[in-house]
Amino acid sequence: MKSVYLDKIRSQNPLVHTITNTVAAHFSANGLLAVGASPLMSAEPVEAECLSHISRALVINIGTLSGKDPQAMLAAGRFANRAGIPVVLDPVGVAATAYRRETVARLLDEVRFSVIRGNAGELAYLAGVGWQAKGVDAGEGDADRAEIARIVAEQYGCVAALSGATDYISDGRRAAQIANGTPMFEKITASGCLLGAICGAFAAVADGAVFEAVCEACTAYAVAGERAAAALQPSELGQFGVRLLDELGALSAETVTHQARIVYA
Amino acid sequence: MKSVYLDKIRSQNPLVHTITNTVAAHFSANGLLAVGASPLMSAEPVEAECLSHISRALVINIGTLSGKDPQAMLAAGRFANRAGIPVVLDPVGVAATAYRRETVARLLDEVRFSVIRGNAGELAYLAGVGWQAKGVDAGEGDADRAEIARIVAEQYGCVAALSGATDYISDGRRAAQIANGTPMFEKITASGCLLGAICGAFAAVADGAVFEAVCEACTAYAVAGERAAAALQPSELGQFGVRLLDELGALSAETVTHQARIVYA
Amino acid sequence: MKSVYLDKIRSQNPLVHTITNTVAAHFSANGLLAVGASPLMSAEPVEAECLSHISRALVINIGTLSGKDPQAMLAAGRFANRAGIPVVLDPVGVAATAYRRETVARLLDEVRFSVIRGNAGELAYLAGVGWQAKGVDAGEGDADRAEIARIVAEQYGCVAALSGATDYISDGRRAAQIANGTPMFEKITASGCLLGAICGAFAAVADGAVFEAVCEACTAYAVAGERAAAALQPSELGQFGVRLLDELGALSAETVTHQARIVYA
Repeated sequence: MKSVYLDKIRSQNPLVHTITNTVAAHFSANGLLAVGASPLMSAEPVEAECLSHISRALVINIGTLSGKDPQAMLAAGRFANRAGIPVVLDPVGVAATAYRRETVARLLDEVRFSVIRGNAGELAYLAGVGWQAKGVDAGEGDADRAEIARIVAEQYGCVAALSGATDYISDGRRAAQIANGTPMFEKITASGCLLGAICGAFAAVADGAVFEAVCEACTAYAVAGERAAAALQPSELGQFGVRLLDELGALSAETVTHQARIVYA
Repeated sequence: MKSVYLDKIRSQNPLVHTITNTVAAHFSANGLLAVGASPLMSAEPVEAECLSHISRALVINIGTLSGKDPQAMLAAGRFANRAGIPVVLDPVGVAATAYRRETVARLLDEVRFSVIRGNAGELAYLAGVGWQAKGVDAGEGDADRAEIARIVAEQYGCVAALSGATDYISDGRRAAQIANGTPMFEKITASGCLLGAICGAFAAVADGAVFEAVCEACTAYAVAGERAAAALQPSELGQFGVRLLDELGALSAETVTHQARIVYA
Repeated sequence: MKSVYLDKIRSQNPLVHTITNTVAAHFSANGLLAVGASPLMSAEPVEAECLSHISRALVINIGTLSGKDPQAMLAAGRFANRAGIPVVLDPVGVAATAYRRETVARLLDEVRFSVIRGNAGELAYLAGVGWQAKGVDAGEGDADRAEIARIVAEQYGCVAALSGATDYISDGRRAAQIANGTPMFEKITASGCLLGAICGAFAAVADGAVFEAVCEACTAYAVAGERAAAALQPSELGQFGVRLLDELGALSAETVTHQARIVYA
C-alpha cells in the first residue's frame, strides 16, 4: 500500500463533524487534530444543518448515547447525506442494550453510511452472526471475521472496518487484512472511537475511494500504535495514550507506506 | 493486608456500569481498564435495566449532575439493587448546592448503597457533622475523620471510605486507616472520582466481603499513586495523571501486599 | 510586567464556576487546579444561584453547546452579575452556526461580561469585521487583530483577549501585545478553552484590575507553553498537553515576570 490520503488530510485540513461519547471526546478531538483534520464536536440537532454545509465528513459514535442524542444523530446523518459528505458509524456496544440496538437500527434505516467501524462483537451483531459481546468490549466468538466484515459491507452498502489484533476491511466485493497494531490499543479506552473518527478524516479526502481511504486510515493508525508501543512497557498504558497522539502527529506518508502490513484478498 | 481482590478483577474483568461526570469520564474509564475491569459509561435511564443484567457493579458519581441525570441514577440504582449487584455512591460536592443535597437525599432514600466514598467535606455533610467544605474540595474541619466514616457507615448501612492524606474506612463496626498515598492526588482532578469507580470494580468481585474489598481498593490505589509520584517532581501533575494509569496497569497483588500501610482498629 | 496575580490565585484558591464543553472539561479542570484555582464544573441551571454565592468567577464556554446549556449559561451569568463576580465568555466557533450566533447574541444582551477571550475568527465575528473563520479554528483574515480586540472591548464594555501567535489584549482604551507562546498550542484541542478558564481564575483575584489580570493570565499561560515545548519535538503534541499542565503547576511569579514579552500600546 502506498499512502495517499494522509498527506491530503494534512494539506486540506477537512472539518470533521463528530458526534461522540463523553469518554472519547477529548482524545478523539486531539487525535483528529494530530492527523491534520479539524475536529468540530457537536451533538445539538439544531445546528446539524449548518454544520453539514461546512463539514467534509460526519462521524456518529453511540458510546454514551443519551437524551436527544438519537435525534441529533438522525438529523446530522440526513443533512450529511443531503450534502453528499461521507458518514461513519461507530456502533459502540450496540448489542448491549435494546436502546442501542433500536437507535442503531433506526440510524441504519434512515441514514446512508459510507463506513461502519467497530469491534468483532459490534459488527457480528450487525451482520446477524452469533457472538458473545461484552458491554462495549469485543467479547468472544467463533465466526469468521473477514466474513462478518463482508456481510456488514454488503448488507448496508458501505465499507466495513472490523478492528482487532488483525483489522478486516471490506466493501462487500474487495477485502483487506491489516496485520499492523499492538495489544496496547485494547488497554486504553476510546482507542476504537478515535479510529472511527480518523476513518472520517480519511473518508473526507477520499473523493469516493472510500475503501482505499479506510484501508489507509486503519493501517496508519495501527502503525502509529506500533511506534508508540515500541518504547514502552506493556503496562504503561497511560503513556501509550500520550505517545499515540505524538506518533499520529509525527506520522508521514513514507512511514505508513514503509511499515504497512496489509494484504488484499 | 494480603491482596486478594486485584487478581480477581484481572481474571474476571467485571463490567462496571459507571454514571460519572464529564470531567472524570475518560480518566475513570482508563483507570478501570487499567485495574482489569470493563468500564461501561452510561447515564441514559432507558438502558439502565438492560445494563443491570450484564453489570457486576454500579458506580454513581454526581460531579456534574444535570438534566435527567438524577432519574438515570435512581433508575440504575433501583435496577442494580434488584439485580443484587453492589452500588457505589460518590457524592461529589454534595454540600455545595441544594440541588446536589436533594438529589443525594433522594438517592440515599431510594437506593441501597454498598459503598459511599468521598472526601472529608462530603462525608461530614452526610454524617451531619459540622465542616467547611469548599465546592467539590474537601475543605477544612475539626471533626474526627474516623468517626465521620463510622457514622456514615452506620447511618446508611454501607461501607464508608473517607479519602484524604489518610484514608478512613468503616463498615460501622470495623475500621481501617490507610497511610499510603501522595499529596499529588489532590493536584489532579478526578483522582477521587477514579477511586470511587475502582471501589466499584473491587466490590464487584467481593462476594459480599465489601469492607475487605474497599480496604484493598483504597490501598491499591494509594500504592499506585505513591509509585507514580516517586519519580516525579511535586509540580509535575500532568505526568502524575499519566503515570498513575501506568502504575495501576502494572500493579500486582504482591506489590499491594508488600507496600500496604493499613491499620485495622 | 511584574507578576502579581498568580501568587494571589495560589494563596486564595478561588472557586471558578466553569460551564465548558465536553472536549475541554477534564483538561480545563486540571489546568485550573494547576494554577491554584478550585474548579467546579456545572451546567445545571437549577444550581446556578447556589454556585454564584460560593464562586469567585464564572467562565462560559460554548464549545459543545447543546440542549439546556443556553439556559444554564444565561442563568449562571445573571446570578454572577448579581453577585458581582467577573464573568468570562469563550465564544467557541461562534461564527460557525446560527445556533451559536444566536446564543452568543443573547448572552451578550443579558449578561455583562468582564472578559471575552477567543481566537481571531471568533472575535472578528463579534467585532463585525470580515474574516474567514473555520469551524472552531481561527481561520484566516486580513483585518488588524489589535483593532479587532479594541472593537470587542469597546462594544461590549469588557477586556478582550484575542489569542494566537501573538495575543492582543484590550480594554478599549489600553492595549497590550504578548509575544510569548509556541505553535504547539494550536496542535492540541482545548488549549484556548483552558486559557479562557485561566482568565477566569486571574479575574477572580483581580480586585477590579481585570485588564492587568488578563494580561498576566495570557502571559503566564504562554510562558508555560514555551517552557513545555522547549524539551519536545514539534510533533509531540500528546506530551505537550501533559507538560503544559506540569509547567502550569511549576510556574512561579518570578518566572512569569522574567520571561514575559509583553508590550503595552
